[in-house]
Amino acid sequence: MSTDPTVEVCFSPKLYGHKLTDGKFITVVVDILRATTSICAAFDHGVKEIIPVSGLDEAKEMKQNGYFVACERNGEIMDFADIGNSASDFLRDDLKGKTLVFSTTNGTKTINMARDAREALIGSFVNIQALADYLIEKNENVVIFCAAWKSLFNLEDSVFAGALSELLFDNGFSTDCDSALGAVDLWHRAKPDLKKYLSKSSHRNRLKHLVSDEDFNYTVTLNSTKVIPVLKGDKLELVS
Amino acid sequence: MSTDPTVEVCFSPKLYGHKLTDGKFITVVVDILRATTSICAAFDHGVKEIIPVSGLDEAKEMKQNGYFVACERNGEIMDFADIGNSASDFLRDDLKGKTLVFSTTNGTKTINMARDAREALIGSFVNIQALADYLIEKNENVVIFCAAWKSLFNLEDSVFAGALSELLFDNGFSTDCDSALGAVDLWHRAKPDLKKYLSKSSHRNRLKHLVSDEDFNYTVTLNSTKVIPVLKGDKLELVS
Repeated sequence: MSTDPTVEVCFSPKLYGHKLTDGKFITVVVDILRATTSICAAFDHGVKEIIPVSGLDEAKEMKQNGYFVACERNGEIMDFADIGNSASDFLRDDLKGKTLVFSTTNGTKTINMARDAREALIGSFVNIQALADYLIEKNENVVIFCAAWKSLFNLEDSVFAGALSELLFDNGFSTDCDSALGAVDLWHRAKPDLKKYLSKSSHRNRLKHLVSDEDFNYTVTLNSTKVIPVLKGDKLELVS
Repeated sequence: MSTDPTVEVCFSPKLYGHKLTDGKFITVVVDILRATTSICAAFDHGVKEIIPVSGLDEAKEMKQNGYFVACERNGEIMDFADIGNSASDFLRDDLKGKTLVFSTTNGTKTINMARDAREALIGSFVNIQALADYLIEKNENVVIFCAAWKSLFNLEDSVFAGALSELLFDNGFSTDCDSALGAVDLWHRAKPDLKKYLSKSSHRNRLKHLVSDEDFNYTVTLNSTKVIPVLKGDKLELVS
């Protein structure tokens, strides 16, 4: 029997079963459009730590308590928030060294669902190789957990899951998970022109008037950063 | 705004939301390994009607009441049952014109979940073209509902969903469902050698000692029959 570490892919929070929260897996949370891409952007631009909150009331209360708050629902910035959740929102010097509160439609809920994992990491195309290197070094079982769109399978998270799975398979990881095998095949379809492939995603179309071309280009550009955000208690910080 | 009929794909019973049971969709239930393939085989060999039951107790009671019962759990025939659920189990003359009771691990539960659909049809590779022709003629919105494996995404049902989606897209159906778009891409990967592609499925591997080569060959052979089973009340019969 093989003792290779395994990779599983979970396409929706509704499929994230109890066995994935038993502390035996490193969970990589993925919400390509936009939470996890933007979280990587924020850390890449010097943010010190991020507090992910699920509820709007909580985000509003944190604002009243003096925090800098990034918050959207269905891709639109909330009126009480300082900024939205686009990657380009974090390209500002006054956030360096700061603590941010971050709340989005799907992404932060998913991050909070991964609290009981052995380790909960943040993945996106912009940090994929750094993340793979870290996981290969750790050599533990991995679950790639897609935030999805209102609990439904989406292409952008699934294709990322395939890309990351392949990097791990190429380095000794194995799987008996059809979602991982299917995701790798989707990645192979998408890889020759990732931007064009993801442009057909219904989620991208839904957000088209809210995701600028600049943000979308950033999102589909691999390895612009080496940051690896990890959940520690209530906060995201960089792995040490 | 387009009035084309739409196609959606649901990869797991856990993702089968309330909107899919509001009577606005024709639902195609899919459990390639093995329920829906075997149901098609049974009708193709002259069975008159099939009563799908979810629970073991119910299946056992039906047996005591004199019904001919096909029943498995996790791919193994139950001791009280007459036969299992392999396609080859139904290639016998004494079932012609009969009523069967049918219960499997995933398939019959999924069929019963589709009761509130406008119409609930049974799909598999063996009847895919006949099914597509029927749906094209009906010209109504379609949900392809995968039984999955213990609620987890599986390749064989998803690839079938992609194959059927493509036949519908080629005939005026549209979608804004990422699952349907992803399923079509998986179908394109699988199509050149469906048998080889599905041999990598974890579900196929799990069932390997229980699914004979003969049954697997039958399962991946397209269009061996034109039967279209439909749920009417508590029974499956052929569409009229």
